[in-house]
Amino acid sequence: MNPDHIYEAGLNKNRANYTPLSPLSFLERTAFIYPNHDSIVYGDIRFQWSETYRRCRQLASALQNRRLQKGDTVAVMLPNVPAMYEASFGVAMAGGVLNALNIRLNADSIAFMLEHAEAKILLTDREFSNVISEALAKLENKPLVIDVDDSLYEGGMFLGELEYEDFLKEGSSEFAWQLPEDEWDAISLNYTSGTTGNPKGAVYHHRGAYLNAVSNSMFWQMPQHPVYLWTLPMFHCNGWCFPWTIAAIAGTNVCLRKVQIETVYDLIKKEKVDHLCGAPIVLNMMVNADDELTQGIKHKVNVMTAGAAPPAAVLESMQKLGFNVTHVYGLTETYGPAAGCVWQDEWNELNISEQSDFKSRQGVRYPMLEGLIVADPDTVEPVPKDGTTIGEIMFQGNIVMKGYLKNPTTTEKSLMGGWFHSGDLAVWHEDGYIEIKDRSKDIIISGGENISSIEVEGVLYHHPKVLEAAVVAREDEKWGEIPCAFVTLKAGQELSVEELIDYCRDNMEHFKAPKTIVFGALPKTSTGKIQKFKLRKQANEIID
Amino acid sequence: MNPDHIYEAGLNKNRANYTPLSPLSFLERTAFIYPNHDSIVYGDIRFQWSETYRRCRQLASALQNRRLQKGDTVAVMLPNVPAMYEASFGVAMAGGVLNALNIRLNADSIAFMLEHAEAKILLTDREFSNVISEALAKLENKPLVIDVDDSLYEGGMFLGELEYEDFLKEGSSEFAWQLPEDEWDAISLNYTSGTTGNPKGAVYHHRGAYLNAVSNSMFWQMPQHPVYLWTLPMFHCNGWCFPWTIAAIAGTNVCLRKVQIETVYDLIKKEKVDHLCGAPIVLNMMVNADDELTQGIKHKVNVMTAGAAPPAAVLESMQKLGFNVTHVYGLTETYGPAAGCVWQDEWNELNISEQSDFKSRQGVRYPMLEGLIVADPDTVEPVPKDGTTIGEIMFQGNIVMKGYLKNPTTTEKSLMGGWFHSGDLAVWHEDGYIEIKDRSKDIIISGGENISSIEVEGVLYHHPKVLEAAVVAREDEKWGEIPCAFVTLKAGQELSVEELIDYCRDNMEHFKAPKTIVFGALPKTSTGKIQKFKLRKQANEIID
Repeated sequence: MNPDHIYEAGLNKNRANYTPLSPLSFLERTAFIYPNHDSIVYGDIRFQWSETYRRCRQLASALQNRRLQKGDTVAVMLPNVPAMYEASFGVAMAGGVLNALNIRLNADSIAFMLEHAEAKILLTDREFSNVISEALAKLENKPLVIDVDDSLYEGGMFLGELEYEDFLKEGSSEFAWQLPEDEWDAISLNYTSGTTGNPKGAVYHHRGAYLNAVSNSMFWQMPQHPVYLWTLPMFHCNGWCFPWTIAAIAGTNVCLRKVQIETVYDLIKKEKVDHLCGAPIVLNMMVNADDELTQGIKHKVNVMTAGAAPPAAVLESMQKLGFNVTHVYGLTETYGPAAGCVWQDEWNELNISEQSDFKSRQGVRYPMLEGLIVADPDTVEPVPKDGTTIGEIMFQGNIVMKGYLKNPTTTEKSLMGGWFHSGDLAVWHEDGYIEIKDRSKDIIISGGENISSIEVEGVLYHHPKVLEAAVVAREDEKWGEIPCAFVTLKAGQELSVEELIDYCRDNMEHFKAPKTIVFGALPKTSTGKIQKFKLRKQANEIID
Repeated sequence: MNPDHIYEAGLNKNRANYTPLSPLSFLERTAFIYPNHDSIVYGDIRFQWSETYRRCRQLASALQNRRLQKGDTVAVMLPNVPAMYEASFGVAMAGGVLNALNIRLNADSIAFMLEHAEAKILLTDREFSNVISEALAKLENKPLVIDVDDSLYEGGMFLGELEYEDFLKEGSSEFAWQLPEDEWDAISLNYTSGTTGNPKGAVYHHRGAYLNAVSNSMFWQMPQHPVYLWTLPMFHCNGWCFPWTIAAIAGTNVCLRKVQIETVYDLIKKEKVDHLCGAPIVLNMMVNADDELTQGIKHKVNVMTAGAAPPAAVLESMQKLGFNVTHVYGLTETYGPAAGCVWQDEWNELNISEQSDFKSRQGVRYPMLEGLIVADPDTVEPVPKDGTTIGEIMFQGNIVMKGYLKNPTTTEKSLMGGWFHSGDLAVWHEDGYIEIKDRSKDIIISGGENISSIEVEGVLYHHPKVLEAAVVAREDEKWGEIPCAFVTLKAGQELSVEELIDYCRDNMEHFKAPKTIVFGALPKTSTGKIQKFKLRKQANEIID
């Protein structure tokens, strides 16, 4: 508006009425109101919010003492330990940008990221000392290395100048940290696990982190004081913004170094965990656990899943075990979840299997996402809501990244036409719900017909003896491509290729049924995603 | 940050990753996801969200057709009817600024506001036709007047050119409304009910309206689909931002023309109302209702109250009736509630009377308020958290108004030193909770001692025969000032002045006990606030 307009003149922003949005505010507020409420539980450690706030301020202070400048990158190579949670706040409180590295990456990838992000300081865990020392050896400008000495892990080496607790002691717990000058300032950097080429670094800002943290709590209808189990890696899209969500609603973070199914069930029972997130692989582990583990949970546990469309069969089993599963959808570029399958009351009338089919849809936009469409990748024209026309899923709004670090060309391309292009292919149902049919590169084109690999996988997962399944395209002289399935059977089960192909043909159109089936373990990324690019290569090396 | 910095270069705001925050987004999202869920219930009317969205778009379209420009004021003189709810969205969707007038004001005040705000269009209800026609007669530039014809009201006259439903028909339900260009753009104007001088118009922006709407739902831990009863006037701080909150979480607005206690209880039972807000006067009506009304509610009802410190005795009675009362605090300048009495688990151990004492505190900052302090009014230096030092309550953050319309001097003064100065006096307890002791002008200084009128009222409210009480200063030759109490007894009760003074002396320090007591009805504002300025005048006209 015109600055002389009556609703503008003399009505400017000032310190009293304008504050940059930042999730750091949540930590301060919660420590003030609930100083004695448990913030972090890990092994024998039990921190309260006042303590977590003090430790985060110490971390920020110590980082500045070591000459961290505004906008400098702090990398961390850590599992879900308390230091990792503290870094989610402390780094930004010092004006730095957090880059949480995927702990399953190799030295080449790590070296690339440390160099590309110009990391000044690195926090690392003994478990990864081999990879990190190899990576550091490749770097010309080495960051200051600080070891986090986790007593729950044995082995590995110290690599750095000092240990994390000693480093904290260098800082002041009364440190006068400041909010960012601008809510558009970067808060973190998250590399996407690209399967080819160099990884791209999605940059998050304070505004988006604040809004998606709140979005999580609204979408999931989380109460005050949830007990949240960290089955989701915090290095994955900053733990989908949940470190900030849990601070906003004064929950308790139950940390977890490794997702071992016994520990997961023990903690659910012991700490009365009521919320946890995880890729479908985590759900799969949970449903396939021994009865003695799954029995005896007397409270409601809410489970949020994303990362791949969870097979309806897995959702169904989770529901039968009494877990309340919510399916969300997003990408590294959208601060983690930015869409979700909102439950409709009329679905209560359906049977559990129909419910699971609905639940496996990606759904509708998150509370603080502005736009979610399925559109033509080139024209950005929305496809009809007919449940059959395939288009690309696109996002718009404050929980879309700033862009990719040092990569203006790809940034511009990915945000072309005012929408973030996800690369995921979906249909748009009449009710406005989106359902992924495939990643662009995962569609199998056989005899001119499109086959959704996800659809074929869905059928395979329904077979009672199947634990996991992945379907990819295999080149074929006659058909162009044919569906090729890689399948892991449940422990102790036997099944022939013929039996399983027959089962598929009984349950889907014949042209969609896999023509090749390979039994065995599936290759996975650190976040539990099946590495289809490896299977695609393998499929094309098979000799009939 | 420097635009060449690695976290800035090529990472600018654009349509894909930045959207101005506005509560209008909530309406669009909810209409998309829950088109068939009830949005508004009123008499025989039952709208769904798709319909409410269409009607709001029609309203916006019709306003633009009538040449409403960006930043023009649309005034409304309406009770809590559907048109009032629609105006909370439709006006802003047309780029206008909503000014909801207090329906109890007289023609002079209304004329002042219409002129000061330069209102272009006025929506009005037949009930107020006398006041409005008198006010319009005083204006040189008259707004376009549109009558809202509510069939639940009989009487009054039509004043304007056309009726609301006909006006809507002039607009398109497919109107391509737009978000504000800037989230700092004004969304509404709310005049404070000043007791002296001209009213001040607090200007709200889209950003603050969005954030406080969300703050409400987080603070109150509201689930999806609440059933919300409109016992709070929507003309009061835009209904504390609840029109936008209810849209954000897809609730049902149960509208109410007038707060009649039979209707309130009927609707609670019939529509299964689970949330309502109101000034303490509403709570007082609820606890003093006949048993046949209060009995038979089988579900949990959450009640939010603010506007004055609710007497502990009233809170206690509400709790005994099974209502779950939350006490919040704020001012017109802070979008309604911006602080609240957050419940602490350890208070569960206390008895109901001790709990009520805690609950009557104003509490701590709202989820999206940045700062709340008790400070020296001149230096803005926080007072010690000792529970005894009195200071002024001050607010800071995104839910503080832009400022006062056409009043830069008062705006600057009220936002001095980076904090909004509330004019409320309070102590700061050791646990960080704020407790109002009085409005600056309500403190009674007797023999050099400060007496909090609220404290004296608290004791009076505990007397079983007292319905309402207000205490003000009365000039006194010996003491300077003495406490003078105005008291309304419950129906059919009798009590002598001496008995009540004795009761007070038994329950507080003697110098604080009222020396004069007057029985009778109390003068109130339209929002149920007792008009102490009238009582103060009356107190000083008493001849002993």
